[in-house]
Amino acid sequence: MMRRKIVLFGDSITEQSIHQNGWGVQLANAYSRKADVLVRGYGGYNTRWAMFLLHHLFPMDSTPAPIATTIFFGANDAALLERTSERQHVPIEEFKENLRKFVRHLKECSSTMQIVIITPPPISEEGRQAYAISVYGVNASKLPERTNEATGQYANACVEIAKEMGVWYINLWSKMQETDGWQTKFLRDGLHLTTEGNIVVYEEVIKVFNEAGLSADKMPLDFPHHSKIDYQHPERAFQQNVCDITL
Amino acid sequence: MMRRKIVLFGDSITEQSIHQNGWGVQLANAYSRKADVLVRGYGGYNTRWAMFLLHHLFPMDSTPAPIATTIFFGANDAALLERTSERQHVPIEEFKENLRKFVRHLKECSSTMQIVIITPPPISEEGRQAYAISVYGVNASKLPERTNEATGQYANACVEIAKEMGVWYINLWSKMQETDGWQTKFLRDGLHLTTEGNIVVYEEVIKVFNEAGLSADKMPLDFPHHSKIDYQHPERAFQQNVCDITL
Repeated sequence: MMRRKIVLFGDSITEQSIHQNGWGVQLANAYSRKADVLVRGYGGYNTRWAMFLLHHLFPMDSTPAPIATTIFFGANDAALLERTSERQHVPIEEFKENLRKFVRHLKECSSTMQIVIITPPPISEEGRQAYAISVYGVNASKLPERTNEATGQYANACVEIAKEMGVWYINLWSKMQETDGWQTKFLRDGLHLTTEGNIVVYEEVIKVFNEAGLSADKMPLDFPHHSKIDYQHPERAFQQNVCDITL
Repeated sequence: MMRRKIVLFGDSITEQSIHQNGWGVQLANAYSRKADVLVRGYGGYNTRWAMFLLHHLFPMDSTPAPIATTIFFGANDAALLERTSERQHVPIEEFKENLRKFVRHLKECSSTMQIVIITPPPISEEGRQAYAISVYGVNASKLPERTNEATGQYANACVEIAKEMGVWYINLWSKMQETDGWQTKFLRDGLHLTTEGNIVVYEEVIKVFNEAGLSADKMPLDFPHHSKIDYQHPERAFQQNVCDITL
């Protein structure tokens, strides 16, 4: 049996998940000696641009296919037209169609892959404005480039497509807003995650993985725990337990 | 071209490298969108037990073979006979022969793989004793189960084999002892690494990788940075830059 793979496909919030307290690091720890967590996060990307990567990242003949993939876009697609980040904007109907294509392709790659669509987190417009001023100073636009309302529509679109396609979803946009002070507790610049925000994503992903039958606790270690090795007859532990696990 | 792989093969100090401030996390960040850092760390293992994993973790037909592999053992092999951890002890001549076999096999897997032997870190006997008391209380053995001197012999053996086989090495045992207060600055229980200790390993590994021509700064991103994408003609960025990078 080959080493299991879990792929995190998304934008900067996925790319940064491998930073020190990131949700990707937490996942990698949870699946230590059980599955490799592979980060395929592309800062600044929307679903239109990510479409160019799809077949490269998920070739049909990948062996083994990932056991699970998270699809975590929308934060950039939801950037507003005629504002600072308009080049990243993708109309919502195209966004939905792109998500459909992602899911369809992943299902073609593997009928057993667990697919999880994660909605973008909410937007703190105040946080974004403070960030813009920190970058552009007095030249910062007074008009928000992202609004929580617009991002909420993209979050709803994620949920809609997940239901339509019969895959898992995490409504991060709603979930985070259940907590008072989410604007600064979970977001560090109105968009990207704090340590606390990363914990929310990690916990939600683990919840879905558990429901989907991918609980790390129930997966065997790749090789025996050292305490199970009889030091006078070490070969016995390996005869019993080793399947053909490779890189 | 397939995604590059860097494999970290070792004991608990490698297994824990993916913890939040670990040297594995720092490496994964440095090689973000360039190479996957795959942790193959086995807490408690010595080279004798790791030998059972070698062909499973590094099969001859792995495509692509890792571009680099760190071999980081010795901390357990150096456990003393007739002490608490004696079951982990491996005589030094066998330790050397095991390292030779590791290197020989990796070279057979790939003639271009950069191989780095990392010596065990030094041992703080006081730190180990405090740890033993925290676990066993008054029943803790008064006799150290590892000594810095014995571990130093295994560290020397690592350097000797690296030179003999013509591969890279990091003499972590010596390096760490150059800094005053290494006993608690770099080690949290006399053996495993603090955040500072993880930084030392990370910096030493990066130094060797740079010398070996694997500088992350000189590797291209897997796909264009989002700022290079012409939003009116996104396909252009992808026609120019995409090689066939897969999982």
